[in-house]
Amino acid sequence: MDIAAILRIKADAILAANAIDLQKMALENPLYDRLQLTPSRLEAIADGIHTIAALPDPCGVFMSSYQKENGLLIDKITVPLGVVGAIYEARPNVTMDIAALCLRSGNAVVLKGGSDAYATNQCMVQEMQAVLADHGLPEENICLLPPGREGMTEWLQATQYIDVIIPRGSQSLIDFVRQTATVPVIETGAGVCHTYVHRTANLAMAAAIVVNAKTQRPSVCNALDTILADKEIADDFLPLLIPDFLKFNVNIFADETAYTILTAAGYPHIQKAAPEDFGREYLSQQCSIKIVAEVEAALEHIALYSSKHSEAIVCESPEVAEYFLRTVDGAAVYHNASTRFTDGAEFGLGAEVGISTQKLHARGPFALEKLVCEKWIIRGDGQIRK
Amino acid sequence: MDIAAILRIKADAILAANAIDLQKMALENPLYDRLQLTPSRLEAIADGIHTIAALPDPCGVFMSSYQKENGLLIDKITVPLGVVGAIYEARPNVTMDIAALCLRSGNAVVLKGGSDAYATNQCMVQEMQAVLADHGLPEENICLLPPGREGMTEWLQATQYIDVIIPRGSQSLIDFVRQTATVPVIETGAGVCHTYVHRTANLAMAAAIVVNAKTQRPSVCNALDTILADKEIADDFLPLLIPDFLKFNVNIFADETAYTILTAAGYPHIQKAAPEDFGREYLSQQCSIKIVAEVEAALEHIALYSSKHSEAIVCESPEVAEYFLRTVDGAAVYHNASTRFTDGAEFGLGAEVGISTQKLHARGPFALEKLVCEKWIIRGDGQIRK
Repeated sequence: MDIAAILRIKADAILAANAIDLQKMALENPLYDRLQLTPSRLEAIADGIHTIAALPDPCGVFMSSYQKENGLLIDKITVPLGVVGAIYEARPNVTMDIAALCLRSGNAVVLKGGSDAYATNQCMVQEMQAVLADHGLPEENICLLPPGREGMTEWLQATQYIDVIIPRGSQSLIDFVRQTATVPVIETGAGVCHTYVHRTANLAMAAAIVVNAKTQRPSVCNALDTILADKEIADDFLPLLIPDFLKFNVNIFADETAYTILTAAGYPHIQKAAPEDFGREYLSQQCSIKIVAEVEAALEHIALYSSKHSEAIVCESPEVAEYFLRTVDGAAVYHNASTRFTDGAEFGLGAEVGISTQKLHARGPFALEKLVCEKWIIRGDGQIRK
Repeated sequence: MDIAAILRIKADAILAANAIDLQKMALENPLYDRLQLTPSRLEAIADGIHTIAALPDPCGVFMSSYQKENGLLIDKITVPLGVVGAIYEARPNVTMDIAALCLRSGNAVVLKGGSDAYATNQCMVQEMQAVLADHGLPEENICLLPPGREGMTEWLQATQYIDVIIPRGSQSLIDFVRQTATVPVIETGAGVCHTYVHRTANLAMAAAIVVNAKTQRPSVCNALDTILADKEIADDFLPLLIPDFLKFNVNIFADETAYTILTAAGYPHIQKAAPEDFGREYLSQQCSIKIVAEVEAALEHIALYSSKHSEAIVCESPEVAEYFLRTVDGAAVYHNASTRFTDGAEFGLGAEVGISTQKLHARGPFALEKLVCEKWIIRGDGQIRK
């Protein structure tokens, strides 16, 4: 709770440090929005930390407990991972979120944020270390490394000192970490997200969901990248997007059919899609549109291009919805809702260290309950194996 | 169940294939025992598969399920991982165990066993594929790759086709896989296992546990490698080991004090330990012995040399036992029992794909319930994010 309080008590200092970082970045940089803190964003981070503090302790949970016929008592309990390394880019909220999650789960954390946010991160970490000291805890439990590539390889290979590395950010950062690290890695981040509008969709609902998923905060990983529209409703559906897409100047990369429909309807910010415009994470007010014949074609497209982050279907047919939910291989799969909800706070988990797009350990919002590992404890009275 | 039945119905063919493999290996090779199948070992494998068949389905389990205030229904369920790759050496039981576990958990499996066991593995996989075909399932669900290094790198980096790789075997195999693979890896295998005999130990129990942990099947990963004996009881304890250690010609690498005690007691197979004799996985009738001043020294030694597999304390003090169990960082930590119990079947899990010595996803016996990943399914009626 004292960690959350920093964000109110020290808000001026944090915002001032953030202003220093912001000055160095061009306003049109898509990272600008990620870097920027505001009083309301600080409030949201603090709320998340309060939620984290109120969640049950993830350590010491009995995963299983039984006695074997030979008398051995076998317990499997959760324990902290140990030392968590986090490497991320321009979002300073990650600093607070990950530190709070690690503290709550009994882990030490070594943070390596990007140079863009270094002043903000330094300010936040200093304030958190002061809280640790106030509570008689070692300040080293929350460390901030200087940004830059120096020493990075050694850090990513420090298997004796770091138990898990969590990269959070662009695909190039994740690829670099995956290729370099020998410490186990939880992959997070990149989201190539599709929303499929089925022929049975409520088209007004579909338009609201697509507009929200694309425009509400395009710089984040759960924002929409590609609209898959059923050919049966494309003529009626696509023009519904125009008023809101005009408001945000959404730039569309359309396949032939979608190009014809939207150009005929007078939409100006449109061009024909090149192959590389599918499977691309836009992180800005841009998206691609493809017309598909039926649900199988949508599923094939998603299987080919998805980063297995968040995918959605809008439809009124329960059978088609369940088939889609079951078939899509992804961390989060939605029916009649915006992919923007893939988020630890929105899922009620307080905050997350990242959205895992891998299959091991944690998938989707990687949050408090997954910042642990298991340990088998076996108690006997002299049992030996026969 | 039909997979288990193969081991009885086709026992002669499997043992004949195994005999071909055994002919090519020297009897004194420590891998010989791992490679060898016997009717009773086939029975044990079949029993394990029956246990696996009777375990609850690990897929479709609701990990959490709740409705948010905005009406979103959020379920987290378990689903198969997809395609599991297993790479292992000379133990043909791994072929049956992993195939059965993957089949039961809805995963396809690509097996890459060692050349030493190739005839046995081919026979087993052919029989399993026949069972799949009988049940109308694709034979490709259980594949065996030829042994050898050709194509190995491509396979370990086939992230589009394989979801997780499980190396099971020597440290050098594990290191090779970890360095080469870009597919996520679950590390299993190498065990540098300690048993600490505290001053309060029941010494007869301690001797029985140590003898069992060392000699009962020394070629496996949960066998004892180093005895840590409390200096207060070393004079009384070490000679208790002599009769059984003589029976198995156990070769001891002893520190100065242990060397003096055991030499005075007339034990012949002993030499002074070099530094590299600690932290070494022996996989044979050899072990090292170190005398330690108290529990802290034992814990420090374990922290330095352990591979975080299986560690044990023998003692009558509940406080010391709990302190040890809590402090040691390992997959399985024992009080008054042999480390030889770290095993999927012994833990009641039927069989395991390996003993995980890493912290992510699964730790200790990596068995049926962990051959899954999670998927968030979110159902709405038009929710968008504000």
